[in-house]
Amino acid sequence: MQLVVVPGEPPLNREAEHLESFITPDHFVRCHFAQPLPPSTLFVGGAHPASWSVESLQRLPPETITVTMECAGNARAGMSPLPPGEPWQLGAVSTAVWSGVPLQSLLSLRDDAVEILARGADGFERSLPVEEIGRALVALEMNGGPIPPPHGGPMRLIVPGWYGVASVKWLESIEALVQPFAGHFQTEQYIYDGGAPVTTMRVRSHILTPSRGWAWSGDGPITAVEVSLDSGPWQAAAVGRPLSRYAWVPWQAALEIGPGRHTLRARARDAAGHVQPEVPPWNRLGYGNNAVATLIFSV
Amino acid sequence: MQLVVVPGEPPLNREAEHLESFITPDHFVRCHFAQPLPPSTLFVGGAHPASWSVESLQRLPPETITVTMECAGNARAGMSPLPPGEPWQLGAVSTAVWSGVPLQSLLSLRDDAVEILARGADGFERSLPVEEIGRALVALEMNGGPIPPPHGGPMRLIVPGWYGVASVKWLESIEALVQPFAGHFQTEQYIYDGGAPVTTMRVRSHILTPSRGWAWSGDGPITAVEVSLDSGPWQAAAVGRPLSRYAWVPWQAALEIGPGRHTLRARARDAAGHVQPEVPPWNRLGYGNNAVATLIFSV
Repeated sequence: MQLVVVPGEPPLNREAEHLESFITPDHFVRCHFAQPLPPSTLFVGGAHPASWSVESLQRLPPETITVTMECAGNARAGMSPLPPGEPWQLGAVSTAVWSGVPLQSLLSLRDDAVEILARGADGFERSLPVEEIGRALVALEMNGGPIPPPHGGPMRLIVPGWYGVASVKWLESIEALVQPFAGHFQTEQYIYDGGAPVTTMRVRSHILTPSRGWAWSGDGPITAVEVSLDSGPWQAAAVGRPLSRYAWVPWQAALEIGPGRHTLRARARDAAGHVQPEVPPWNRLGYGNNAVATLIFSV
Repeated sequence: MQLVVVPGEPPLNREAEHLESFITPDHFVRCHFAQPLPPSTLFVGGAHPASWSVESLQRLPPETITVTMECAGNARAGMSPLPPGEPWQLGAVSTAVWSGVPLQSLLSLRDDAVEILARGADGFERSLPVEEIGRALVALEMNGGPIPPPHGGPMRLIVPGWYGVASVKWLESIEALVQPFAGHFQTEQYIYDGGAPVTTMRVRSHILTPSRGWAWSGDGPITAVEVSLDSGPWQAAAVGRPLSRYAWVPWQAALEIGPGRHTLRARARDAAGHVQPEVPPWNRLGYGNNAVATLIFSV
């Protein structure tokens, strides 16, 4: 598949505007190039290379997972000094149901493979360590229907728990690598200071209303959410039951709030012991801002 | 005048919603107590104490000044970690025309006076060093009419160039002090870390649209405004003519902006050489956040 560039049509980038529902009615979009023509086959390398048509993939046993996906640059606009890159506010996170074929079932690897390289029809390339292949899905459906073009249809790699950059859209090839990939989007973008690529989503919460919101982490289940009203002491919120291992969980807080202007802050903790920091963790390219969530409101 | 507390009625705090005009159609409101009954006289101490009725003040030669007033806590919500206090976003700044009597014309001071203490009918007290009296006005009118009650009518001290805390509302007394004032709002609130009271407004800009905005400083005229599009290099904006020594000046930028999501940043510089910092200057109580202005927009 050739790289198709539509002259004058910039890559599409859009935040999700509605985060109230467990499955978000819209899903954020992050593109690095213009939308390509849809690939009709997926090449899978490794020990037994094969080319799969969309139809042949559809005949394999399907798996369905619900995934909260966040862009590594979400909330970049909250960092100071402002790093370059898309000025995401709080809407570069969404939850969707993805169905498809476990990557593992398509791929045999030689012992010396260290990474797989996923390539989209737009030219975007990103690798994934072989240890993480078990969680990855070659998705063919999003929310029960074909994957819409802006979201990477007809085939998208889904790496649950990882920042969205790992979930390569318009997937046209998976190669096995015996050396770590050193491409642009692996070593110059989507890296923290020092050069380590972004991986799992850092523990994070979102406030929908003064009494409820979401919390998620790529590093294990959410174990606690705390809220602070008007800079008062942190107090425990009730954390809801996880509906999926890889999706956000709801939290609820019962606060007595009088008239006036107020600030509510929320911070989540995950099973790995990570907790959201008070200060945005600054880095040169503005990734992984998981600082405490804040909502300013009036009663 | 007695302190009047209206049960169940919280102090009024409100941001200005429209900052597009040189004189803002609404003016931010910051109150520490419920609105008191209006005082009918102003006691002025010093070497020749006197009590002035509103009517007697109205018969004195008037002076009119246009003043951009900012709350010291403006943009507190942009600080991390979030300090306690009113969660002001960007609207705790406004410009109005104030008419009244120069404080100097009402006051004679003994040589040993170091501060004057202004007291409002709500119980709020704040002092001003004697060196600053020359700029202060006992205002009787706001924007050509009586000062509306939420803005401190019938008499309000106006200290142009200083954060709003110095402009005591519902002014009922001015005393001369031979020792620095040590009251709550002088030594426990409206202070920077270390204890120094907030004084002049730090140099600051506001972005109205990607091509224009305001800039102001309490430390001298604005000498330059620069803008940066999408984290590109800083480039000079055109700074308009000052319409008043104590009011914000307009700036304009001519940028070629293509389709997509963009970030515009603006920073101002004043005659004292101060320039807006990239990182909000954090302090425990959240005052004086004059970090670079940011606007995120789509074309």
